Amino acid sequence: MEYFTSRRTVRKYQNRRIDDAIIRSIISDATRCPTTGNMQLYSVVVTRDRNVIDRLAPAHFSQPALTNADVVLTVCADYNRFVRWCELRDATPGYDNFQSFMTAVLDSTIFAQQIVTIAEMRGLGTCYLGTTAYNPDLIAEVLNLPKFVVPVLTITLGYPDEEPSDCGRLPVEAVVHDEVYHDYADADIDRYYSEKEARDDSRRFVEENGKQTLAQVFTDVRYTKDACEHFSKVLLDFIRRQGFYY
Amino acid sequence: MEYFTSRRTVRKYQNRRIDDAIIRSIISDATRCPTTGNMQLYSVVVTRDRNVIDRLAPAHFSQPALTNADVVLTVCADYNRFVRWCELRDATPGYDNFQSFMTAVLDSTIFAQQIVTIAEMRGLGTCYLGTTAYNPDLIAEVLNLPKFVVPVLTITLGYPDEEPSDCGRLPVEAVVHDEVYHDYADADIDRYYSEKEARDDSRRFVEENGKQTLAQVFTDVRYTKDACEHFSKVLLDFIRRQGFYY
Repeated sequence: MEYFTSRRTVRKYQNRRIDDAIIRSIISDATRCPTTGNMQLYSVVVTRDRNVIDRLAPAHFSQPALTNADVVLTVCADYNRFVRWCELRDATPGYDNFQSFMTAVLDSTIFAQQIVTIAEMRGLGTCYLGTTAYNPDLIAEVLNLPKFVVPVLTITLGYPDEEPSDCGRLPVEAVVHDEVYHDYADADIDRYYSEKEARDDSRRFVEENGKQTLAQVFTDVRYTKDACEHFSKVLLDFIRRQGFYY
Repeated sequence: MEYFTSRRTVRKYQNRRIDDAIIRSIISDATRCPTTGNMQLYSVVVTRDRNVIDRLAPAHFSQPALTNADVVLTVCADYNRFVRWCELRDATPGYDNFQSFMTAVLDSTIFAQQIVTIAEMRGLGTCYLGTTAYNPDLIAEVLNLPKFVVPVLTITLGYPDEEPSDCGRLPVEAVVHDEVYHDYADADIDRYYSEKEARDDSRRFVEENGKQTLAQVFTDVRYTKDACEHFSKVLLDFIRRQGFYY
């Protein structure tokens, strides 16, 4: 159980090949995770070919976690397989809608996290790329994703070549609500975020970005309103084009 | 590692109290899971009061997994805490959009799965309730969820009072694609679904529901087009009302 508190995201990997059988075994074990109605509304694309990884790179802004990874897993919300099965069995699927899309997103995210846990427990380093949702069309083009398939999360894998220090978390009280949700008073926010704000790396982020507060690094630099609104449109258009109307 | 292949969802629990400290410790360990930009865009409401659980029950169609659970965890996509922090730090948040909602959904689903894994490894039984997305407004009312908070998944917890048999999974080949996505030929679908279709419980489902195929049990009974379209509208309206425009 010590694993859960000592785990770290790893972005730098050794130049060492992970055996295909290990990858397959991790994925196979991960399929035992729970899914909605046991429908398994996900797929995973296992990319190791450098040419394909190079073509995926721009979609992920060429992050080193991707470019130096041994294996790239693109976990997709997938209704294609299930719909195909229905059609071959005289069943009329009604899954071209937003609720079905969300169901497949939950299934595939649970599956992705199971892969991460198993891979890390076996000594591999992993990193999620949140950029998957920013450029789904480019990823879909490179990976030949058909209708009813939407990339949700990318996981990079490799043998760790760094021992990252703890990047900290909010105190558990900040995220737990007893019985019902208790909204935060200003003093709660101050208390819960004070440790994060006092960290050396946080202070460095603020300084390097020429900001007054850590929160401004998020709102003005890392996750701006303009970018969020742009990527909202991209993602919504893509979801619709893949067959999930709303 | 044997845990991952032997795990089962447990819906029947002993009449035995889980210590509050165990729950807190599981959640605390789970907060070490990765999240987007380490923003931790989730909250978990820990409900043990029978009155509150009784009020939640209709939202989950009074499933026994909920009504006989010792603890009910409602994991929520939460931008409320982060937005409050931004506002108190002279930062202007731009997170009232669909992309931000999806980011928080991924964070909270990864967090939920980490809770499930840790709880199960500690000997507890867990069950996800996918019904959370069907009646988010009722859940929000019972749990006092403010703007920017959307319930994503519910996890019921208790000491197991059953040893469920294996409900099976598709062969791993069905969900893995090498290098890029390879669409399914009819023969692939037949091969991948044959074991599932041949199971005794599958045959029983088909018979009990008066259907010809297992797929029809899904399309005509369990997840119908009408229900999916109805719940799409409910969920989209709710997301918008909680402040995530699209």
